[in-house]
Amino acid sequence: MLADDPLGAGRERPGDPGYVAAFEEVERDPRQVLAVAVLDGEVVGTLQLTCTPGLSRVGMVRGTIEAVRVRGDLRGRRIGEALVGWALEEARRRGCGVVQLTTDASRVDAHRFYERLGFSASHVGMKLAL
Amino acid sequence: MLADDPLGAGRERPGDPGYVAAFEEVERDPRQVLAVAVLDGEVVGTLQLTCTPGLSRVGMVRGTIEAVRVRGDLRGRRIGEALVGWALEEARRRGCGVVQLTTDASRVDAHRFYERLGFSASHVGMKLAL
Repeated sequence: MLADDPLGAGRERPGDPGYVAAFEEVERDPRQVLAVAVLDGEVVGTLQLTCTPGLSRVGMVRGTIEAVRVRGDLRGRRIGEALVGWALEEARRRGCGVVQLTTDASRVDAHRFYERLGFSASHVGMKLAL
Repeated sequence: MLADDPLGAGRERPGDPGYVAAFEEVERDPRQVLAVAVLDGEVVGTLQLTCTPGLSRVGMVRGTIEAVRVRGDLRGRRIGEALVGWALEEARRRGCGVVQLTTDASRVDAHRFYERLGFSASHVGMKLAL
């Protein structure tokens, strides 16, 4: 699902052992939640939630959502909505005071999707490749 | 420094024991780096770097910079530049493939500052308070 995406296609290599090593790293870290949506026994969506402690706002924990994907042939069935809604509940349960994410400026549908879920496009997301 | 800021003023409570608890949480987590800039023996700036493992981009580690502050009376002396430059080096040393941050859309000076350091405003930063 990460590769089946206009932006992901050029930067993923399905089958690469790097994914297994990364999965183990994520699993070992209690601040990471890698969730999948399952429909009729099949994985149809995924996302990663990270809960980060910090000093700002009197020591508020921040939830960050990354890598939200829904299987391409199942779009429009509110799977993403259920998945992100679940992540918001999980973030609340883990004591996060805010949940944040960045989406590529070209993903206009994604902005509308997150605004429907209550997110506000209040920030500029800046990236620097190392 | 977190409170001495147009946006921070309303949401920080200097002296609150919540900061001490949060500091201990950050210190215990090997993926967090809380850095300070020191000038003539005084703390004049701070930031937090978080290195997050993930599956996307063949298991790339992402660096996230949060809570960048420089003491108000020392602006314009390139302390922020030195501090963020240090964080980029530290992120590289820890194997991050990208460094990301969000800045409030109203912080126009901050956008220019990060663009000078090589960041690109390619994303929309979305937030939801829980």
